This record gives sequence, structure tokens and C-alpha cells, in this order.
Amino acid sequence: MTEFKENLLNKHFLYPFLNPESICVFGANNEFLSTMGAMQLRNIIFGGFPKNKIFPIHPKLKEIQALKAYENVLELSEIPELALIILRPKIVPQVLEECGQKGIKYAIITSGGFREVGNVDLNKKVAQIAAKYDIRFIGPNCLGVYNSWYRYPEYKDTSLNTMWIYATPERGNISIIAQSGTVASHIFWICREMGVKIGKAVSIGNEDNIDTVDFLDFFRNDPQTSVIGIYIEELKRGREFINLAKKVINEKPIIGIYAGGTEAATRSIRGHTGAIAGNDRIFESVFQDTGIISTISIKDWMYYLRTFSSGIIPHGKRLGIITDSGGCGAMMAKAAEKMGLQVPEFSDDLKLRLKKYVPEVANIDNPLDLTFQFNQYNLYIKIPKLLINSGELDGIILYAVFGFEEVLDIIKSSGGKAYDEFEISNEMMKNIYLKPIQRLIMKKRVPIFYIGPQGYHNPWVREFIKANIPVFELWDMPVKCFNALAKYSEFKKKNLKKNI
Amino acid sequence: MTEFKENLLNKHFLYPFLNPESICVFGANNEFLSTMGAMQLRNIIFGGFPKNKIFPIHPKLKEIQALKAYENVLELSEIPELALIILRPKIVPQVLEECGQKGIKYAIITSGGFREVGNVDLNKKVAQIAAKYDIRFIGPNCLGVYNSWYRYPEYKDTSLNTMWIYATPERGNISIIAQSGTVASHIFWICREMGVKIGKAVSIGNEDNIDTVDFLDFFRNDPQTSVIGIYIEELKRGREFINLAKKVINEKPIIGIYAGGTEAATRSIRGHTGAIAGNDRIFESVFQDTGIISTISIKDWMYYLRTFSSGIIPHGKRLGIITDSGGCGAMMAKAAEKMGLQVPEFSDDLKLRLKKYVPEVANIDNPLDLTFQFNQYNLYIKIPKLLINSGELDGIILYAVFGFEEVLDIIKSSGGKAYDEFEISNEMMKNIYLKPIQRLIMKKRVPIFYIGPQGYHNPWVREFIKANIPVFELWDMPVKCFNALAKYSEFKKKNLKKNI
Repeated sequence: MTEFKENLLNKHFLYPFLNPESICVFGANNEFLSTMGAMQLRNIIFGGFPKNKIFPIHPKLKEIQALKAYENVLELSEIPELALIILRPKIVPQVLEECGQKGIKYAIITSGGFREVGNVDLNKKVAQIAAKYDIRFIGPNCLGVYNSWYRYPEYKDTSLNTMWIYATPERGNISIIAQSGTVASHIFWICREMGVKIGKAVSIGNEDNIDTVDFLDFFRNDPQTSVIGIYIEELKRGREFINLAKKVINEKPIIGIYAGGTEAATRSIRGHTGAIAGNDRIFESVFQDTGIISTISIKDWMYYLRTFSSGIIPHGKRLGIITDSGGCGAMMAKAAEKMGLQVPEFSDDLKLRLKKYVPEVANIDNPLDLTFQFNQYNLYIKIPKLLINSGELDGIILYAVFGFEEVLDIIKSSGGKAYDEFEISNEMMKNIYLKPIQRLIMKKRVPIFYIGPQGYHNPWVREFIKANIPVFELWDMPVKCFNALAKYSEFKKKNLKKNI
Repeated sequence: MTEFKENLLNKHFLYPFLNPESICVFGANNEFLSTMGAMQLRNIIFGGFPKNKIFPIHPKLKEIQALKAYENVLELSEIPELALIILRPKIVPQVLEECGQKGIKYAIITSGGFREVGNVDLNKKVAQIAAKYDIRFIGPNCLGVYNSWYRYPEYKDTSLNTMWIYATPERGNISIIAQSGTVASHIFWICREMGVKIGKAVSIGNEDNIDTVDFLDFFRNDPQTSVIGIYIEELKRGREFINLAKKVINEKPIIGIYAGGTEAATRSIRGHTGAIAGNDRIFESVFQDTGIISTISIKDWMYYLRTFSSGIIPHGKRLGIITDSGGCGAMMAKAAEKMGLQVPEFSDDLKLRLKKYVPEVANIDNPLDLTFQFNQYNLYIKIPKLLINSGELDGIILYAVFGFEEVLDIIKSSGGKAYDEFEISNEMMKNIYLKPIQRLIMKKRVPIFYIGPQGYHNPWVREFIKANIPVFELWDMPVKCFNALAKYSEFKKKNLKKNI
């Protein structure tokens, strides 16, 4: 144990799964297309894990991906802290037995082919061996873990990724517990695009030894986690889950997907983790009771995670909508009201103060349609500031983010004159627009959502994502995200009252 | 009139708005950041419109964007077919009067500041002048038109874009009628990304002279239009709209957004096009009656447009789900059943035939989780073919599209061996995978939706988009899109019965 590890709050038994000092890998090889294991080992290596602490175990190969391979775990000169097992299910008991003999206490069993295909006996065997040697394990039938904070700050830029998806999201304060490897890792590409910054993700599989409740407890106490995403197919410890979630929710929002509850979904789940999925209504009421923000859409789930990762919880549900175009304002207002949000009329006083920033042909109201507008400073800073300081709104959506560079390039290539005020460096732009926005949001705790229809690949939109300012491509999601925030805020207030 | 124009089916009075032989532009200049007009003229020029047929009119400037400018429309030596007016509202009547004197019969009045801000008298004046000179006009308070098929095939790659958004989507068979410039044009960036291929888009504004019904009639008869997207804030000719939509819907699907119906939305609409929005329920029943596919989400709307543009309408609502990962299968099955779709169990016969393509550790059922799978040919072709030929399914969603190039690059950079079977050119890949898929879909009229979590910017995913094969980033939308298709198919069948 290093000093760092002891100093960290984390004395939790799950800590070594995310931060092992050394790892042995069963089932890795050099056949990238025919086995998952090759890519899983590759990802561990490429995450920056100390190479002299990775031990591939293989009956035949002497070298795997430029690492020395060992025929048997027993011949290692040290005890690896974690074992990663990616073998055919029938071989798993024997290998786990050897891990136990070696003195390994933590294992991730990736292998599928257990109770989800009817092999219940195999599950029992594995459980017995684990009990005998006091081994805790994740899985079987999972992809393991991703930890962007691997032994931070001892290791600055090292991450641990035992999954086979080679893409990784940016590091952040979101942690994921999923009874599905897809949900825990296949989303990583889009996470990077959208700016969903994930710190840790666990694909938890069949939960034969370690379950969602265990990891919920871990993430509750994890200082690097502020928001928790969960994907559930079944709950083995329902009562414990509810009790724990009720406590967690006051400190850290939980965004939940329950995937079961219909006939074909249940059939799918039986074949997936072997679970018996429950009634949809039961889960709906569990989520409602505990205050878990619930969705069955993967995109919503990702957006909610990103939204809550900002840490800004609004005081109420009054939404201000500013656009440079009327149609999206009307659509957002409609969507907001249908969700039970308020889009209040501005007071006469506020309307008067807005007057100087609004063109003659525009109406001053909420939604506020500024029509064609290129005074960026008013748009980004002055108007939001005025609205926030009015105290009449709890959140603001601003539709109008256009990438400067692209617009200026178009103008120049069209023979238009250069505009000095925009011809400043990107760095300056950040100071003029992005930093004041950040300060404003932090100070007043009124979230501002920006929408830029040029899409997430536009360089200016990417600056927003880098600065952790919520930016959207189109106008459906910001309303949904503010609604999720407002509902959570309301839930917390009610909870507070109950407890007084 | 050219010979081509006379030969075309289009003798419709709206034809010249989308295909003018010449155009005069009021309100354009060289100030790109302070006026919309500069960008609108720029877009007309850059679309490839014959330069000697563009006539900027300006009281002072002698040259605008390298084109000769004229002080007054009356001094032109020819009569422009279309006038584009982007001036302050007060000047519009005088300019329209001059257009009338010149003999111009078609105008687009972009200018805002009419009834939507209470200037009802101005509307009347404009209407009187138009009546006097027999001028038909789009607007006021609009962005005009986009036509990617501008006088095709006479002009091969020329488009007409009178809007100020400079991005354009790829050319396709989708046409849009919108009482909002945002909906008609701001979506163009994301359309390009998603592969929503738009042929024509009209921002129709206040509809003082030409309305949604007119354009619905036009697109009904337009051979370049197969799907129609509409965005409605109000309907002035409700009865005519319903009667016409009922006829159109049997030939061309209509995807509709109604933006009014709530308090703040109505307030927003009043300030936007000056319309009085109706009750939400009325519109819901109008959409239901006519068979218009309805949504209030801009993203759904775009996806539905793309989906219907393929022209493949399924026979029923039985959905097959194939994945290489269980979690997304369960989520899709749940979403499908909640929407009223069927995810039927496969027959024993079909299960037997699937067996040889499915790994030992996987369950054979619907959803079908293939687990880790790199046999691309089975995945892309063999399995979908088997499912389609079974006659047990009306649509298939296949989650597993991974960009070859990216995966191979990762493998190579990780020291993995080269895989000859994948080391073939992109061109070959298209012939091996994409063309057979296309043939299969066209032959059996069973839509296949592919999902590739690497996102729309991945080169392999872009090949799907280029080939018009529906591909998605994540797994919410394919289910929704199949649902829209199934509902439309059901509606058409019922309609057919009614009419027998």
C-alpha cells in the first residue's frame, strides 16, 4: 500500500477494483479481431498502467502485446492485486481457484455464459471458490471498469480501462454503474462529442458477488464523484437499494434507467444478465420515492448526467427563453409548459430595461425573440445578466451560439470586410465571453443553456464544452435538462421540509 | 421561358419562386454582420445563380459583392422574374409599388415588423399594392426559399438559397414548409451531419398572400418531393388544409410540428408571425385525422423526415432487434413495446437457422444478442437476410456498426497483426456490405436500421449516410423511427379499407 492510498478517504473494499497496484490478465492474446481479451489488455496498456505491473497469463504464448506472458498465475513472483478473467466459462472455476491459491483477493470476471444461458451450476462453483479464498469479484458477464482517476494524483494522466471499447470520454465527476457493458462503455464516443465527462464507469454484469448497492455506497463516499448514472435490469437487494439511494440523493443526483418491465425486454434481460426483471410500475415508484431522475432514453440519460455534473441546481422552475429566431422559441415554450415548467411573462420593469438591447422590430417578452442579432456581447453577457439579476427566472436558455470562426471565414471568402472587433484571438474571446458567463452562472446559481446549431464539431461550440458551459445542438434537450434540474430541486426542497 | 420549364410538370404558380430566371434584391449590401441582406445575397451568388441575372438594388451603392448595383428597379433593362425584399418594413410598400410598375409578378418579403409587432396597417397597404399589380408574394417576416434542385437538370449543381444561413444540406427528396426560418434553415448543419437530404425548404412567414396550403399543393405535384415536413403556428385555411392533406398523405408522408397550444407558446407565436395559435387538441386531432406524423421535437422531426425519405414503408409492426451487446437490446425492446410495436419471439425454425451464426455463449431470441462479434459479413448481411426472408419481421434494427478504419488503426498502432480480409479498399467494402444491404432492403421492403456508436463523423458511418442506408448514433431513435413507419403503414391500410 502506498502512502497516498492510505491517505485517501477511500478505505472502501471496492477501491482496489478501480485502483489496483498490479493486474494479471487471463485470456488476452494478440488476436484483436477474434477475442475481446486482446483489446482489453491493449486498453490497460494504453491507459498508462505501469507496464511492469501487468501480468498476462497464457498457457502457450510467451509474449503478449510486447509484455512477458506467464503460463500460470502461481509462477508470478508477486501477488497481483487484481485478476481480470476473460476466458471461456468452463475454465473460470479452475483459474479462480489458482488466483485464490496465489492470494489474489479481487477479480473481474468478464466471461459470459453463466446463468444468462442457463449455466447455474457454474455460478455456484465460482461462488464457492470465491468464498473459500475470500475473493470479491465483479461479474461474471461484464466488461469491468473504467477509471479516469486511476490513483490520482500519484498518477496524473493514467486511466484504467478493462473494457474492450478503446474510446474514452474526458475526465469528469460523473460515475456510472451499469448492468450492461454497452451503457457503461459504448457511449464513450458520443460522450466525448457531447462533453459528458466521465470519471468512473463500472459494467457490473450478473452481480454474483458485488452489486449495484455496493458501488452506490462506494460512489456516495467517493470525492471524485458528483453525479451517479445507473442502468438497472434487476435489483437483488431492493430494500437496501432504496434506503441507500434515499441518502445518496441529497448529496449526489442519481440518473437512472430501468430497462425491464415489458415482455420482450424481460426476455432480452434473461438472456443478457440472467436476471428476472420486475414490474415496470414497481421501478417507477422506486425511482419516484427515492428521487432518482428516471428515463428510458440513452440520450436523455447522457444529457442529464452532463447537466447535473455542473453542480448548479436552480431555485425553482421559471424558465427564460432568448432566441434570435422565433420558431425555436415557440417550440421550447410549448415543450416547457407541457412538462410543467413556467415560462413567465417578464415584468414591465424588466421589459423596460431590456429595451435598449432589443431591435425595434422585435417583441419584448418571454420567449424573447431578438430576431437577427450580431451584437455578441449583448447576446452572451448583457441580456443573460439582466435576466438573471431580475430575480424573475430560475434558468435561461439562449439560442444563438454561432461559431465566430466559421462566420468570419464565410464573410471573408465572400469578399466582405474584416471586422476588427472579432479579429481577436480565440484566447481573448474566451476571456470576453466564456469566463464572464462561467462567473455569472456560479455566482447566481441560475443555469444558462446555450444552443449552437452548427453542431458539436464546430470549434467555437467545442470551447463551450471545454469550459463546462452547457451547450446544445438543437432545442429539444435544453428544455428537458432544465426540467430534470427543476424536478430535482423541487424533490430536494420537499425532502428538506419532511426532515424538519 | 426556357423549353425545359415548359416541359416540366410544374406549371404551378409557385414554380418561379423556387426557380426564378432572374432576381432583384432590395436591402443587400456589403455589411455582413449588421444586416441579413448581405448574407442572403451572398448565398444566392454562391449557390451558382447566373451572375448576370442577379440585380442588387440600392439607393447609394454602385457595386455590391462585386455585382453592379442599380439605384431603382425601374432602371433595369429587363424585368426580373422574382424580387427579394429585405428592407425596413416602412419602405416595403413603396418598393413593392415600384416592382409592380416594373411588371414583376413574384416577390419574397423577408422584412419583419408587420402584424407580429402590431403594424396591421402596413400589412393592408402591402396587400392592396400586390392586388393592384397582380403580385404573388411569400412573407412578410420570412427567410424565403432554398431549392437544391434549382432548374434541374438545366443547371446541374446550382442551388437557390435566399435565406441567411450559409450552410446547406445535401440534395434529396425532402421538402419543408415552415412558418419559421429557424426550422426551415438553422437545422441545415445538423441535417448534413445526420444525412437528412433536403431538396426544398420554404420559410413562409406571416402568410399574407401565399400560405402552407399553397405549398402543400405544390409539393404534392412536385416530382422531386417524396416527403413533406411542415411546421405550423396557425392555419388560416384549416378546412382546405385538412382536405388537401388527406389527399397528399396517401402519396407522400407529411411530418408535422404544431408549435402552439400553450400559453407561453401562444405569446411567442403572436410576436413571431403575429398569428393566433389555436387549441393544441384541435391540432392533435387534425394531425390524427389526416394521418400527418406529428411531433413537437425538432430532432424527432428531422429523423422522421430522413426515415420516410427512403420510401420503404413496412408491411406491419413486428420488429427484430440484433445487437452485439445486451443492454441496448433490452432498452430497445422496452421502448418498442411501450410504443405498441411487437418484438415477437422467433419461431423454432428461425432459431435453428440462426444457430450457426451465433456464438455458443449467446441466447438465440428476439432481441438477439450476438455478444462480441467480429464476423462482419454475418452481422451485416447473413443474419439480416435470414431474418428478412423468414417473413416473421417487418423491420430490423442492427446495433453493431463499427468503423473499420478506426478499429484497424487501433489494432495496428497497438502492434496487432494486419487482417487481410479487412485490408481491402473502402470501395470494395462498399460493394461487399453496402450494396447487398441496399438491394435487400429495396427487394423485401423491410427497413433495416443500423446503429454505430462511433458517431456520424466516423468515415464508415458516413459511407452508410452516403448510400442512404439509415444509420444512427445511439438506440433511442431507430425504435421511434420504425414506430413512425409502422403507424403510417397502419394508417394507410385503414384508409385503403375505408375507400374500398
